[in-house]
Amino acid sequence: MKQINAVVWGENVHERTNKIVAEIYPDGMHGCIAAALNEADGINATTATLQEPEHGLTVERLAETDVLLWWGHAAHGDVEDEIVERVADAVNAGMGLIVLHSGHFSKIFRRLMGTPCNLSWREAGERERIWVTSRQHPIVRGLPDHFELESEEMYGEPFGIPEPMETVMIGWFQGGEVFRSGVTYRRGAGKVFYFQPGHETYPTYHDANIRTVLRNAVAWAYNPEARIQDVNAAPNRSVEDALEAIEQKGPRLHEDGEEGFR
Amino acid sequence: MKQINAVVWGENVHERTNKIVAEIYPDGMHGCIAAALNEADGINATTATLQEPEHGLTVERLAETDVLLWWGHAAHGDVEDEIVERVADAVNAGMGLIVLHSGHFSKIFRRLMGTPCNLSWREAGERERIWVTSRQHPIVRGLPDHFELESEEMYGEPFGIPEPMETVMIGWFQGGEVFRSGVTYRRGAGKVFYFQPGHETYPTYHDANIRTVLRNAVAWAYNPEARIQDVNAAPNRSVEDALEAIEQKGPRLHEDGEEGFR
Amino acid sequence: MKQINAVVWGENVHERTNKIVAEIYPDGMHGCIAAALNEADGINATTATLQEPEHGLTVERLAETDVLLWWGHAAHGDVEDEIVERVADAVNAGMGLIVLHSGHFSKIFRRLMGTPCNLSWREAGERERIWVTSRQHPIVRGLPDHFELESEEMYGEPFGIPEPMETVMIGWFQGGEVFRSGVTYRRGAGKVFYFQPGHETYPTYHDANIRTVLRNAVAWAYNPEARIQDVNAAPNRSVEDALEAIEQKGPRLHEDGEEGFR
Amino acid sequence: MKQINAVVWGENVHERTNKIVAEIYPDGMHGCIAAALNEADGINATTATLQEPEHGLTVERLAETDVLLWWGHAAHGDVEDEIVERVADAVNAGMGLIVLHSGHFSKIFRRLMGTPCNLSWREAGERERIWVTSRQHPIVRGLPDHFELESEEMYGEPFGIPEPMETVMIGWFQGGEVFRSGVTYRRGAGKVFYFQPGHETYPTYHDANIRTVLRNAVAWAYNPEARIQDVNAAPNRSVEDALEAIEQKGPRLHEDGEEGFR
Repeated sequence: MKQINAVVWGENVHERTNKIVAEIYPDGMHGCIAAALNEADGINATTATLQEPEHGLTVERLAETDVLLWWGHAAHGDVEDEIVERVADAVNAGMGLIVLHSGHFSKIFRRLMGTPCNLSWREAGERERIWVTSRQHPIVRGLPDHFELESEEMYGEPFGIPEPMETVMIGWFQGGEVFRSGVTYRRGAGKVFYFQPGHETYPTYHDANIRTVLRNAVAWAYNPEARIQDVNAAPNRSVEDALEAIEQKGPRLHEDGEEGFR
Repeated sequence: MKQINAVVWGENVHERTNKIVAEIYPDGMHGCIAAALNEADGINATTATLQEPEHGLTVERLAETDVLLWWGHAAHGDVEDEIVERVADAVNAGMGLIVLHSGHFSKIFRRLMGTPCNLSWREAGERERIWVTSRQHPIVRGLPDHFELESEEMYGEPFGIPEPMETVMIGWFQGGEVFRSGVTYRRGAGKVFYFQPGHETYPTYHDANIRTVLRNAVAWAYNPEARIQDVNAAPNRSVEDALEAIEQKGPRLHEDGEEGFR
Repeated sequence: MKQINAVVWGENVHERTNKIVAEIYPDGMHGCIAAALNEADGINATTATLQEPEHGLTVERLAETDVLLWWGHAAHGDVEDEIVERVADAVNAGMGLIVLHSGHFSKIFRRLMGTPCNLSWREAGERERIWVTSRQHPIVRGLPDHFELESEEMYGEPFGIPEPMETVMIGWFQGGEVFRSGVTYRRGAGKVFYFQPGHETYPTYHDANIRTVLRNAVAWAYNPEARIQDVNAAPNRSVEDALEAIEQKGPRLHEDGEEGFR
Repeated sequence: MKQINAVVWGENVHERTNKIVAEIYPDGMHGCIAAALNEADGINATTATLQEPEHGLTVERLAETDVLLWWGHAAHGDVEDEIVERVADAVNAGMGLIVLHSGHFSKIFRRLMGTPCNLSWREAGERERIWVTSRQHPIVRGLPDHFELESEEMYGEPFGIPEPMETVMIGWFQGGEVFRSGVTYRRGAGKVFYFQPGHETYPTYHDANIRTVLRNAVAWAYNPEARIQDVNAAPNRSVEDALEAIEQKGPRLHEDGEEGFR
């Protein structure tokens, strides 16, 4: 059985600088998430962090990554633009991407959405109840129609995202807000899933339902088809090779075989 | 009657450097397009070009622009990133945007789509026939179910865009290709329309059907609602002001009133 | 200024049989809704009810109706299938349709959606808070980012609808549920809006925000383009009249000019 | 490895009454399609026809069917409404559905779409070239970016369908038309794919690319999750069992435990 190669990218800042976070996630949030994924037979999960060279996301590594998970919060601005473009190209070429919680403001998510990705928030430890809105969707496989997190950061609508391909889950918050907690997109050949829970001062990634969603989402986001090569290419088709016989007519900007403008 | 303020942004390069283009568009392509728009009672169209300070798109100008049209080809790379972000913010805040032809590779279109926006192409002067796929859509008001352009640049699928909100028109090309020639999106509070025809060596923007589409598209893209202020804001909602009474519990990252991370 | 002709269709059962409903809506729910619409300069609203011949929706009446609003609950089964088909044809031909509250189970809504349109429910008079999820959408023009109804029937997810074109509002319920309270669709040339509030034992349609949404929705759903004639036609295009010259080849089922199968 | 149970439903009329069709498809079109599917390791395909009791689609059979394929043309009207509802319920509960060619006018497709599903057509044996518009989509796995059918019936836009979830393929016709040849939807928990080629007087289902699409589509449409039970249920949630404590207030239509209206 083909193993899905998942890479859990963690910002890895609060785990090292904040005692509360360090105690909840002694192996880092990325370590906890990777462990959750590795409980699945079909997933082989490893980690990468901001502090590694090229943030752990070299060309070679990304080429072998089927699905990338992204958790960041305090240091979005430290992620190099070149790496963001590299990840965006990989997604458009067919890599799956799962963006977690505060990753809504990550460069890569905003890069792929084109919108502000903003929201309202409150760190009060309040109860969240997540409702499934798309029954039997692969991402909610094995889940009840709702489940609760005793403490989560409130993320509230309006959420500045494009209309999703699918709204899979919506969250109810004790303080009176709602949020589209699980939404899907397609960008090029890549599938994208945003999942709202995961504030670092709460043990969210130890929750059984959350871990089920993460494993499901990796399986859903995986595109078994070969990665698109030269994902930004805009090939010129010559008159000679046209599929239907045509003759050149009218004035031209370009000589035969010339590259197009960019 | 409220006039819709439309600004036609033109790259204004080939009109000045290429004799063919200059003859077809003696007032510039932007001038021709603005004239087409001004034939409508409800539209007040002006122009802006790459060569003006801030490319003619100052903060003040954009604030008064209801709908921006964008034609560029040879000099996408010369558009300053800061202006691109400014336009993206305006769209997300409610300004309409119409991207024309080779603008598929403009920074602003790729910025808002998140995908490569690539395609195949051939400059052979071949016939294109555009079919309406969304009957009675406001953008095709007054058009027959298909119309022809005797010469257009071939743009062929696959077109590297996200799934549109609506596919309004599909083009048939003499050489054997097809293309999603008219597609709509929503980005934030702004409506976006991409329209494929408009190669600079052909008289496309003098065509009556094309001019009708442009006028319709401006009316469609116009959002009469006030522009969103502080379009990227992520407001913190305090526990005290929660809509339902809650009590602070659990550990926190943020002190009261502190800004969130970005 | 063109007046939008809106027809408010009311089942008109509980208003006559239930004392509570009769007191809240002495002119019928349809009467109250029509009055809300008539507060707008550009809308001319009238009513139709189940008990009228052809349920008040004759061919002639529908031909002059720009936007139809539909409220039903206790007597969905009494609506004649022929009238449902007539309304469905009108929507596909360009008439707007606004389906209210318990109309989620009406024949016309299920006919146009293709799905069960089911949900969970509770009649407890609990508080609902409706959040705007699509900022500056025409349907929420003039509304704050959220508003409350002190008592509404709980409608809870999962809601058995197809993925909407746009999710405009999401409801938060005091008892712990969420619901996609305002969703849009396009069916043929017609725009469809489903809006959840409106249980008959509460004064929902007297609420100022609700009335604003109704007026906005009528303006949004109105398609000024002419109604499509013969909306179900599947025209045969002859070889002789093909837009590109082709020759008949291969075996055929149909003689020249023959009707297609249905 | 789990085998996907696919049932190919064939109208089975022209195969028996038209000599041309009988020669191309001696085992029936459904037989040819089932054979194409059975070339895949993971698919177990059988057939059902109009003439069988309950059209071969008993409750028990559908319960075991993972993906249903539907080809009909001359006898749409002979399919019993009760069976159509049964199939619609199965799709909403999670069964995949693939609608082929003239099935665009089948009761089940129109039932699930809510729109006329009409188009223009010409039976001229002309060339069709199908372009992939969604690269690396699972349905086009292993296909080139375009492929040709030497003779197909022309199906032309406008195609009276709701906006698809994804437009996967678009057809180019020699006579000058275009068509959205491969489109996807989700209805309830079921995935739906419409695929245009397959006129009965041409050997379309013997074509290698077409057979690849059919096999891919079955794999794509298969939902491994358990079928939803009681797919049309609208459960009442009692005040006592509310997830958040609430108290009954306000007037009521329903007594405790009463069924809702339909």
